[in-house]
Amino acid sequence: MKNTHAVPVEFGDTDPAAIVFYPNFFRWFDASAWRLFAKAGLTLDVFRQEYGLIGAPIVQATSKFITPLRFGDSIEITSYVNSWQRKTFHLVHEVLRGTELCAQGVEIRVCAERLTDGSEGIRAVPIPDDIRRRLSED
Amino acid sequence: MKNTHAVPVEFGDTDPAAIVFYPNFFRWFDASAWRLFAKAGLTLDVFRQEYGLIGAPIVQATSKFITPLRFGDSIEITSYVNSWQRKTFHLVHEVLRGTELCAQGVEIRVCAERLTDGSEGIRAVPIPDDIRRRLSED
Amino acid sequence: MKNTHAVPVEFGDTDPAAIVFYPNFFRWFDASAWRLFAKAGLTLDVFRQEYGLIGAPIVQATSKFITPLRFGDSIEITSYVNSWQRKTFHLVHEVLRGTELCAQGVEIRVCAERLTDGSEGIRAVPIPDDIRRRLSED
Amino acid sequence: MKNTHAVPVEFGDTDPAAIVFYPNFFRWFDASAWRLFAKAGLTLDVFRQEYGLIGAPIVQATSKFITPLRFGDSIEITSYVNSWQRKTFHLVHEVLRGTELCAQGVEIRVCAERLTDGSEGIRAVPIPDDIRRRLSED
Repeated sequence: MKNTHAVPVEFGDTDPAAIVFYPNFFRWFDASAWRLFAKAGLTLDVFRQEYGLIGAPIVQATSKFITPLRFGDSIEITSYVNSWQRKTFHLVHEVLRGTELCAQGVEIRVCAERLTDGSEGIRAVPIPDDIRRRLSED
Repeated sequence: MKNTHAVPVEFGDTDPAAIVFYPNFFRWFDASAWRLFAKAGLTLDVFRQEYGLIGAPIVQATSKFITPLRFGDSIEITSYVNSWQRKTFHLVHEVLRGTELCAQGVEIRVCAERLTDGSEGIRAVPIPDDIRRRLSED
Repeated sequence: MKNTHAVPVEFGDTDPAAIVFYPNFFRWFDASAWRLFAKAGLTLDVFRQEYGLIGAPIVQATSKFITPLRFGDSIEITSYVNSWQRKTFHLVHEVLRGTELCAQGVEIRVCAERLTDGSEGIRAVPIPDDIRRRLSED
Repeated sequence: MKNTHAVPVEFGDTDPAAIVFYPNFFRWFDASAWRLFAKAGLTLDVFRQEYGLIGAPIVQATSKFITPLRFGDSIEITSYVNSWQRKTFHLVHEVLRGTELCAQGVEIRVCAERLTDGSEGIRAVPIPDDIRRRLSED
């Protein structure tokens, strides 16, 4: 399963060099992850109510920035899971302007639940088969 | 040369799970990089006027997120260059809450100049010795 | 002239109360203003090259927040100029979820040029008739 | 009761005109409100546990932008409540660079609780006397 969505590059996303301030790419990656999840039926409510999870928080994020983006650029981000481990999975995000790959990100995420010790702590759990299946279908 | 500065975790930095929305870590890393540069005398004006550079843009950024941070947490970020190549250098950012390492980021940056072809393009140049020296002193 | 565009409410736009962190509304208003300008042919390049302006910076911004928005809400923002003075104009931004008005913003903007004294200062200039005309047409 | 805190203007806060992108002022105002609340003993936990409130969400926000701010500027924000109504209160935020007033914001906030109908809705309640008292002391 892949999801592609269009992202406008806004004036406020850019810096004094007139190129996108890089943390915004990660903001877009997170939004892209949620769109892929939604396509798989995994809304925040479903994470919470069906699986008892707070969601799929990040444990590592990386991006290569290949071509600077400017205000007014039209980009598309394609996202998909490209590997599964017992407790983590890797999400790839490809940022394209037309056919040009401008940035490529990888997020490593877990499925996390709230600790039951009264703290606000969270911990990773083995990824439910059902979540893996939902994100792997075409 | 290292720089350490305190960063408050604000309400607006956190998400519905009440933990910091991860792109904010990269926002902090960028601010931390600029503080290290400033400590070395490398303000944006110095980059522009002394070196003819637009600054030191990112080509890759990575972070491990080890412990979630919450609104009201007091953190410190320590930043330093830990390797130099001809055109790139690696900046490490360690996010500590007390003595606990909560996140660790690596930014790969270049020294970039504006293209002279009238486009708004930019390109990496060999890192001026002087910039390397300034960022390596204690 | 009015412009309406759809804005997705992202996970990262929301806070621990699971409602949109309010500064994001102003981020949306600024993006909406640029879309209205673009519809009138007023891109950043046109501001700079045709009019010698740095753009149309804000001198005052206000918003009423009527109904909290949540992650996954689909909203539309309609923007238009509703009054002109010699040096300022008022932009209205209406945020609708379906037919429900959830927020209403007003930005007061000026047309600004860079000072020529070598400083980085800016100053408001009388609004060029041409800009007023472009933003007033249907 | 007033609270004053220093805010660094970061590179990432600024736009292609090299001045602060205005929604960031509102981000600062929200952080300043929380600092004032904290000074009065009103942390998010206290709002929740002592008063059964989700916090003090915004119903209206306004700012005048008097002098543009640039990367590297050192500013201080002074915040205080300047009027109380039964369900709303007005918070003033003064942004100073040295002695120069660069922006002035007013937030109108309410004390809100979660609806008990199972929805995620919220509603304003009469401001607890205790909260008013805490925010009015010197």
